[in-house]
Order: sequence, then structure tokens, then C-alpha cells
Amino acid sequence: MKAEIIAVGTELLLGQIVNSNAQFLSIELAALGIDVYFQTVVGDNKNRLLEAIEIARSRADIILFTGGIGPTEDDLTKDALAAALGRTLHIDQLAMDHVQRFFDDRKIVMTENNRKQALVIEGTTPLSNEIGLAVGIAFAEENKYYIVLPGPPREMKPMFTDKAKPWLQQHALTSEMPIYSKMLKFAGIGESLLEDKLIDLIRGQSDPTIAPYAKEGEVTVRISTKAPSEREAMVKLDVLEKKIAGILPENLYANIDVPLEQLIVDWMADAGLTLSAAESCTGGLLMESITNIPGSASMFAGGIVCYSNDLKKKLLNVPAAMLEGPDAPGAVSREVAEVLAEQVRMIGDSDFGLSVTGVAGPGYSERKPVGLVFVGLAERGRKTEVYELNLKGTRENIRLRTVKALLYRLWRRLEERKVATPLEGSALQ
Amino acid sequence: MKAEIIAVGTELLLGQIVNSNAQFLSIELAALGIDVYFQTVVGDNKNRLLEAIEIARSRADIILFTGGIGPTEDDLTKDALAAALGRTLHIDQLAMDHVQRFFDDRKIVMTENNRKQALVIEGTTPLSNEIGLAVGIAFAEENKYYIVLPGPPREMKPMFTDKAKPWLQQHALTSEMPIYSKMLKFAGIGESLLEDKLIDLIRGQSDPTIAPYAKEGEVTVRISTKAPSEREAMVKLDVLEKKIAGILPENLYANIDVPLEQLIVDWMADAGLTLSAAESCTGGLLMESITNIPGSASMFAGGIVCYSNDLKKKLLNVPAAMLEGPDAPGAVSREVAEVLAEQVRMIGDSDFGLSVTGVAGPGYSERKPVGLVFVGLAERGRKTEVYELNLKGTRENIRLRTVKALLYRLWRRLEERKVATPLEGSALQ
Repeated sequence: MKAEIIAVGTELLLGQIVNSNAQFLSIELAALGIDVYFQTVVGDNKNRLLEAIEIARSRADIILFTGGIGPTEDDLTKDALAAALGRTLHIDQLAMDHVQRFFDDRKIVMTENNRKQALVIEGTTPLSNEIGLAVGIAFAEENKYYIVLPGPPREMKPMFTDKAKPWLQQHALTSEMPIYSKMLKFAGIGESLLEDKLIDLIRGQSDPTIAPYAKEGEVTVRISTKAPSEREAMVKLDVLEKKIAGILPENLYANIDVPLEQLIVDWMADAGLTLSAAESCTGGLLMESITNIPGSASMFAGGIVCYSNDLKKKLLNVPAAMLEGPDAPGAVSREVAEVLAEQVRMIGDSDFGLSVTGVAGPGYSERKPVGLVFVGLAERGRKTEVYELNLKGTRENIRLRTVKALLYRLWRRLEERKVATPLEGSALQ
Repeated sequence: MKAEIIAVGTELLLGQIVNSNAQFLSIELAALGIDVYFQTVVGDNKNRLLEAIEIARSRADIILFTGGIGPTEDDLTKDALAAALGRTLHIDQLAMDHVQRFFDDRKIVMTENNRKQALVIEGTTPLSNEIGLAVGIAFAEENKYYIVLPGPPREMKPMFTDKAKPWLQQHALTSEMPIYSKMLKFAGIGESLLEDKLIDLIRGQSDPTIAPYAKEGEVTVRISTKAPSEREAMVKLDVLEKKIAGILPENLYANIDVPLEQLIVDWMADAGLTLSAAESCTGGLLMESITNIPGSASMFAGGIVCYSNDLKKKLLNVPAAMLEGPDAPGAVSREVAEVLAEQVRMIGDSDFGLSVTGVAGPGYSERKPVGLVFVGLAERGRKTEVYELNLKGTRENIRLRTVKALLYRLWRRLEERKVATPLEGSALQ
């Protein structure tokens, strides 16, 4: 089955919003085993919309529309689709009741143009809108399948997942074998090195497929296979996962789509372990990424952004002799990273203390190169370890990669404890 | 002039990445007065790419391609475009030298497939790639204009701005009156309230045009006009800017595209003023957004993420009586925000101290509702002020809006000083 996604809206063509709907639907359709061959964006213009519909009908089996089904004169998707197929529009009574109730509940008089949101094409299945007002549509004609969805993502996503997807599975995908996937998540390794390590596996097999990709400092590999049942698919996916885990045992951290910091927060919270942090060049990014995870309050005590040397001395007891003078190691040094991690662990009375000191650029500091960073990991009752990083890229890249590298070290340390005292609820289920 | 943007890449059709290139180019083209009528996404498949090129040639004057110009067999954009136009490809020597130098510098042997990145279509203008390796292309044929750009945004954006845009201005836009714009940046006001306040102005005039949009907690208004010269355009834009400034004098912070934290960092660094911060529910996001700005080291001392009550007491001297007990105001209170701001200002020995304490959710805390946040602003020699925020949205939204609201208060305070002691280099030039 070949699909095309047509997003309707002049705001997309002006760049006021990015077409995240196409991304969402593409992921969903791929998971259903449907190949998306084209994504098209067209403005709120009936002739150009008709043109896009004609082209899509000539090359796709399934056509999905997003946007252009609201109450204003600019909302033309249903009009154009009905015209292209020579069908009429009529009010769907259930959808109309839903719109009317919305206004009644708010004690507002409904303006006439809102009736438009209850329009459906004759002889089609209305897809009710649980979040907004405009009703969606699903129907088949001459072995082509049409789905009309609203533009706002918070309306579009649940309508697709709860209404359009089951409709497609029931009407369009009866003869297709479903596709099953697993997301494998990696840390402490870049995309190109990962590809290098897995290249024989990637080239040597076509089922399950292996698709690596990188974003925001994390590498993900999706493994997928078609099978008549989930059980049979999982058997094949598990075999491949074990092979990959055997090649990269120290980097594969989860087989579900979860960021590393989520894994760390959940695991430490469950195990009753606590953390604090002292950051220089990352300036709060490390603590921000941890506290961004709901539930972090129970494992994260807090920490210090010691941007100035004064604060390093005053709050974290870094000896002046380490920071100043011609023979001092300086703020960006193994020695200072060690003191920062140990001191902040004690201040926070935590099980673990993390530290960062480095040169994020632009411009060097202390005659040290941009990208030189030391990260420290202190643990109650163990010797503190410091790791030297030599990173490339912009200030933003260097800060992000530093945080990911340090979280990776913390995860490895937690894994060691896990081996010693196994705990339920591992992400590698 | 009508344009079409064709993004090439199967990763887009799988939903692995979102088509942010189309958004960037749409904004840029709109600013040049070029109407984008279609955005198309097609995979790494020569036949389908040829089909997309034929369709675009039938309906657009300017066709921009992004992606598919790398070294692998899947990179087909130049091949397909050359085939569609009946032209040949050849190696551009300058581009080839650039690729070769990259490998020589790293002492790596260049593999043969990398030569592909230096290919250009005969008789066209190469667009050099300052960030990556693949060379771009610009050319005109039969009153149609073609631009080929790389896929990675960090390569594509500078190549468009520095190479393709001037080429388009010189070759395609000679008969058009150029369009001039100004970006007006607002803080401390939401998009809908801003639109409300400017609605008469927006409806009442068509030249210059007024286009508000919101992203990541900031509101921007682009005002644009066509004029034969920049001087004439600026006269018209200045008149409108003054009108808008008269309506929203306390919210318009810049007439160039600069984030609020950049303005604050630059201005405080110039004025020799310093800052420190204590964050609870924002967990480092405030300090992260300040230290993300190059040059922040000279004005930002550092601060404390006091996530636990223990750290609030230990590092920031919050009295236990304020935090504990049935009648205590609790951690999320006006009183604690005040102590945090004052204490961190003194600890950092800074001119200003900022503080945040609140409930970012999910789930309430201290029986206080999600979205209740207190932010404090302490200044050397002045009474500390605390502002209560009642925010809606997700944890991420609440944290982001809190940071923007507090930076807004700091900016207003700095503006007061500026009126008292005017300083050069204001962003409102």
C-alpha cells in the first residue's frame, strides 16, 4: 500500500508552523507497514488543492489530509475533496450536536459558520473529534482510501490513533501482514561508530530491518519485521536484539523509546538513591535535563552552577591554589572536576555527585582549547573518577554532548550496582 | 514569483525527522516576496524524484531542493535534476579540493564515493559548502530558477543565506520591488493578548503588513513592506514601529531578532552588572538559558538549584519555620521566593539575584496547584520584589514560561536603570 499525506494550510507555506503532522503520520503509517511515497503541503486555495488531490489520486492508494476543516471560509479541504470525487456534503447530526453542545456549555451563541465543522461527504464514515469541534472523515472509493483529519496536532493525533487507524486496519489493511518494531537506544557512542560496528549485521540481513538514526546527542536503532502475529515478530526481533547487545553491550541502554535521563531518574528513584551536581561550563543544562523528568524530585537534591571561580571556592571549597597562579592546574582540570564532584555530593548529602568543568567556547579559556571538558563522578564510599572529553562543534553541541557523556558514565555505574543487586523494572525487559 | 520546495529523503517519509528545512526556506522566501505554493517531500528514489521535478516545473518559477546530495548511492538529487533537464554532471574542481582537504587535514584516506559530493550540473553556479562537504547548485533555464541545497540544516541554512539568497536576488528578483522587514520582539505578553491589542492596526492597514507569531514562549511581529529602496522602506517601517511601541511600550524589547536573554546578557556585561540565581521548580532552566549565551561568563556568577528543602536551608538560609509546620507558608510561597533571591544575590556578591519556586507538575505539591509559581527579583540597595504567576500547560510549558516571565521582570528593571543612565548599544536602535 502506497500513501500520500496532504497537509492543507497557508501557515505551513509561510513557515509559521512546521509540518509535524506529516512526521507523526509517517511514523504511524510506517508502523502499519504502509509506505509513504510523498508528503505534499498546499495552501488554502481551492484550485491548487484540487490539483494536489488529482496528483495524489494518480499515485497513491491511501490519501490522508490534515487541516482545512475548521469553520472559516479558508477551510476548503472537504469542499475540494467532495468536488474532486463528484460528491455532495451534508451535515452529520451527531457532529452537529457536538458543536452545538460546546457553545451551549459555554453559554455562547453559536455563529452560523460553525455548522461547517459538522460537514461530512455523503456516504462516508464520520470520525468524531474528542478534543475540538471539526468532524473527520474516512471512506473508500475505487480501491482508494481517504482520511480527512483536523490540523491542530492535539486534535489530529487522537483522531488518527483512536478512529482513523482502526478504520484503516479494518478496511485497507486486511490482506497485509502487520509490521512490528522495537526501538533500541544507545548512549556513549556516536552514530557513525555505531554504524561501523553494526555494518555487517545491517548489510547481511533484510528481515528484520535495521535502521539507525541520531538526534540530539542520542542514537536510536529501529528494528522491524512483518509477521502474522506479534508473538512471531517478537521472537525474530529478540534474536536480533541479542546479537546487537552482544556487539555493543556497554552502549545499549533500553529497548523502548526512553531518554537516558528518564531511565536514570526512574531507576534511582526506585532504588532510593540520590544525586547532586556541580556545573561550570554546562551552566545548568545537566540539572535541567534531570529535573525535566517528572518524579526527579525524589532522587535529585539539587546542585550548584559555579560559573565564577569565586563560587567554586566559596560554595564548593575548591582550594585557591588549584585555581590561581602560573603552576595551578586551573578551573578546567581533572583536579577541579574531582573536588567539585566530591564536594557537591557531600553538600547534597547524596549517594552520587556529578561535576562538569570545561571550555564550551566560543573562544578559549585559561589557554585551553574549546571542547576540552572534564566530568567527575563521585559515589559514597568509592574513589571519585574523572573523565576527559575532547568535543567538537558549537557551544550548544559541546554542552549537550558533555551532559550526555556524563549521564552515560552515571548509567554505567548504576548498571554495575544492578548486576550486584538486581532490581525489577529494568528498561531492558 | 511562485516557488516550490522539494525535500528529498526517505528519512522524512519514515518520520525519522521533521521537515524543518521547508519551514526555514518558506520564511526566507516569504521575506523575499516569493510565494511558496507547494512543499513536496519525496524519498531517495530516482523515478519518483523525476516525477516530482516534472510536476514542480509545470507549476513553479523557482524550485528549491534540499537533501540527497551526499556521498552515498541513495543521494540522487543532482542525478535526477540533470536527467530531467538533459544535462550532464561534472566534478567542480574547487569543491573537489575542499573535499580532499577535509580528508587530508584529518589524515584519513578519502574513499572514492566522496568525489560525488563535488559534482555540479554543467553550466551552473556552484554554491560552496562552508560547513559540510557537498557543493550546492544555482542556475536558470527557460525562465525557471533552480537551487540545490544540502539536507543537514546546519549546512543548508548558511548556504541559503550566504550563497543562494544573493544569487536569487541578483538573477530571479531583478524586476520585483524588494521586500524589507523588521522583526519586533515582545516579552511579558501572550500572542492572543498582543493580537487583541494590535487588532485595529492589523485590520486597518495592508502596507506595511503586520504578521504576529509565537514560538517557545516569545512573541514576534514581523512588519514588512515593498519599496524601491531600503531608505524608503525604513521610513514606512519606523512609523509603524513607533505606533506599535506606543500601544505596547512595556513589552516591545527589540527591533532585531534577538532572544530576551541575549539582550540581558549583552547589556549587563556592557554595564558591568552581575547576576546570580536560585531555582527550585525550573531546576536549572533559567541558568541554562543565560549561560547558553556566549559572553555570559562576565556577568553571570552562578547559582544554586535548591530542589530539596534541605538545600534551601543549608545553602540559602531559608528558615526551617518558613518551610515546615502546619502554619508555615511552605517552599512554594512569596516568603521563600524573597529569601532565595536575596540570599543568592549575597552569596554570588552580585548586583541582581533571581529566584524561582513553584509547582511545575504533574501532580501538586504542598496542596498547591500545578502552575502556581513565585519568582523573586533582588537588587543591591533596593527592596526585593516577588511576582506570583498562575500558569497553564505541561511541566515543560510551565518551566519555560516561568523563565521568560522572570527574564521579563529583570529586563524591565534594567530598562529603568537605562532611563536613569542612558547607555549606548541598545537593541532598539
